[in-house]
Amino acid sequence: MRATYMFGAGDVRVIDVPDPVIERPTDAIVRIVRACVCGSDLHPYHGLPATAEGIPMGHEFVGVVEETGRDVATLKKGDLVIAPFAWSDGTCDFCREGLHTSCRHGGFWGRNGIGGGQAEAVRVPLADGTLVKVPVGEDSALLASLLTLSDVYGTGYHAAVKAGVNERTTVTVIGDGAVGLMAVLSAKQLGAERIILMGRHQARTDLGREFGATDVVAERGEAGIAAVRELTGGDGTHTVLEAVGHMPAYRQAIGVVRPGGVISRVGVPQYEEAPIGFGSLFGPNVTLTGGPAPVRAYIEPLLPRVLDGSVNPGRVFDREVGLEQTPEAYKAMDAREALKVLVRP
Amino acid sequence: MRATYMFGAGDVRVIDVPDPVIERPTDAIVRIVRACVCGSDLHPYHGLPATAEGIPMGHEFVGVVEETGRDVATLKKGDLVIAPFAWSDGTCDFCREGLHTSCRHGGFWGRNGIGGGQAEAVRVPLADGTLVKVPVGEDSALLASLLTLSDVYGTGYHAAVKAGVNERTTVTVIGDGAVGLMAVLSAKQLGAERIILMGRHQARTDLGREFGATDVVAERGEAGIAAVRELTGGDGTHTVLEAVGHMPAYRQAIGVVRPGGVISRVGVPQYEEAPIGFGSLFGPNVTLTGGPAPVRAYIEPLLPRVLDGSVNPGRVFDREVGLEQTPEAYKAMDAREALKVLVRP
Repeated sequence: MRATYMFGAGDVRVIDVPDPVIERPTDAIVRIVRACVCGSDLHPYHGLPATAEGIPMGHEFVGVVEETGRDVATLKKGDLVIAPFAWSDGTCDFCREGLHTSCRHGGFWGRNGIGGGQAEAVRVPLADGTLVKVPVGEDSALLASLLTLSDVYGTGYHAAVKAGVNERTTVTVIGDGAVGLMAVLSAKQLGAERIILMGRHQARTDLGREFGATDVVAERGEAGIAAVRELTGGDGTHTVLEAVGHMPAYRQAIGVVRPGGVISRVGVPQYEEAPIGFGSLFGPNVTLTGGPAPVRAYIEPLLPRVLDGSVNPGRVFDREVGLEQTPEAYKAMDAREALKVLVRP
Repeated sequence: MRATYMFGAGDVRVIDVPDPVIERPTDAIVRIVRACVCGSDLHPYHGLPATAEGIPMGHEFVGVVEETGRDVATLKKGDLVIAPFAWSDGTCDFCREGLHTSCRHGGFWGRNGIGGGQAEAVRVPLADGTLVKVPVGEDSALLASLLTLSDVYGTGYHAAVKAGVNERTTVTVIGDGAVGLMAVLSAKQLGAERIILMGRHQARTDLGREFGATDVVAERGEAGIAAVRELTGGDGTHTVLEAVGHMPAYRQAIGVVRPGGVISRVGVPQYEEAPIGFGSLFGPNVTLTGGPAPVRAYIEPLLPRVLDGSVNPGRVFDREVGLEQTPEAYKAMDAREALKVLVRP
């Protein structure tokens, strides 16, 4: 079959690889119907050291079950399924607590012999725990929105949930990428009435307004901080959802959070050390939370409103390519010509 | 009157200063009955640059109201009062939210013309908001325990509250100073059944056991982390209450926190930058919280059990001196000969 591999920074290729086969009785083979490129795929796209073997890419997909191992109990051939960006058993203590990204037996796509989602098919470990069956066919108009439940929607939702967003909290969302926009949508769903979106790509921030942003701040750095403070009587917002992962975004988060507030990060940090002392987090009793979203926990709760059309998160996809064009999808997202690119194998 | 000033690292003196007088109609003059030296006083004791004027010291005291400004409504001469380590109006939005350390009109002892508590008397700004009247006399045997409500008890409690300690959370407390021991007591009060105290001074950890610690780990660094992990099936604890403030304690906190757990800091950080990236906080979805405790918020809720004797936090005081001996109190605490020294002006 054909599958997308990255061989180093900027070097994405679609290559021939062996078809995936059932290796363990808990596996399923899923034929990919929709996949996509993630903002977090751009991090290795910028910095991955050259590798001769390459790394299978893609951790977001909707597909159809083609084959199941003998221990798979809840899925059968023909089921349309959503895969979260981490696979998990669904039964360990962490999964039962809703922290599937820390599953005791789980893992991530594209590692340790597991393929990626930007491919024709993939072997899904722990299929019963990992996959969520949805009652639509592969011709459904909802596929793009369902695909966001693989990562960006659940990730934006995680940011808002961990921040404790509710009707009494003001919110700043940092980043107008797909996760930032999903954070806006999620904050709105959780009842927030004031949502300030920091982003400078008008097409994206316009979509953010449709998802629920009440204010848009295009400035960055000190000017952006000043603008948010001016919008909030000098105080900043109760919650800040950081959907970028670079240090300037973190510094911006510190600058716009209200004393006693929460910074919730879901952009994968591209730094290890950062300010957390008296002058940043400690003095004003600011809480820092977030991490890789256990999106598996959020698929079922978020699914009904996607299925009934009351939310339409699939609008973050503004371009569509075939599998062979996946390398162009990376290029377009890296150049910010595309917000998020859907891949149709 | 006599008051304690610090003139540089290691240089604490009791000197003559003018008696405090009412300067604003919201002031009260309080005669100090009990004060003490705080672990956080040792930070400037180690690092304060030499200063000719000196800095008034002490932010914990119980005293008797001697005089009130004309706008003070709730206090009168003769009232015995507890002062929190930050003064606050009690009426602004932050105070109403319980974040008195961010009061819009508040401040801290020993700054901007306000004296300190290690003195014969002090002018208390915003006396109605700041002081809590208690129904005991200045000969009460409860004074030492009441004095802990000025800082260390409320600070330990803040650590536990912000961490979300309850009957389902396991707890590690880092630090066997007075705040660490109060964090143990607080975690126990909030229902925790497993409380691991990391500390290596047996007299202190013995007291910690009496306050509720179920396990004591004397090792530090990697050995300490390994010991806590061994006690917790490899996982670490749901909550970690960091009551030290130095970088090794923070690193220890990262090492012993369970994925999805909370590190709650109340030791004043002696660092600004620290690890918070994928390899420390982000990857395992660990939350970092805490800050200067709004102890004013906790005095009323914690007071009844102090008054009825069901808790006895005053046991953290293991030495008592007169005001003139305050410099020796610093020395004894710095040498760890004393856990916490009570000062009787």
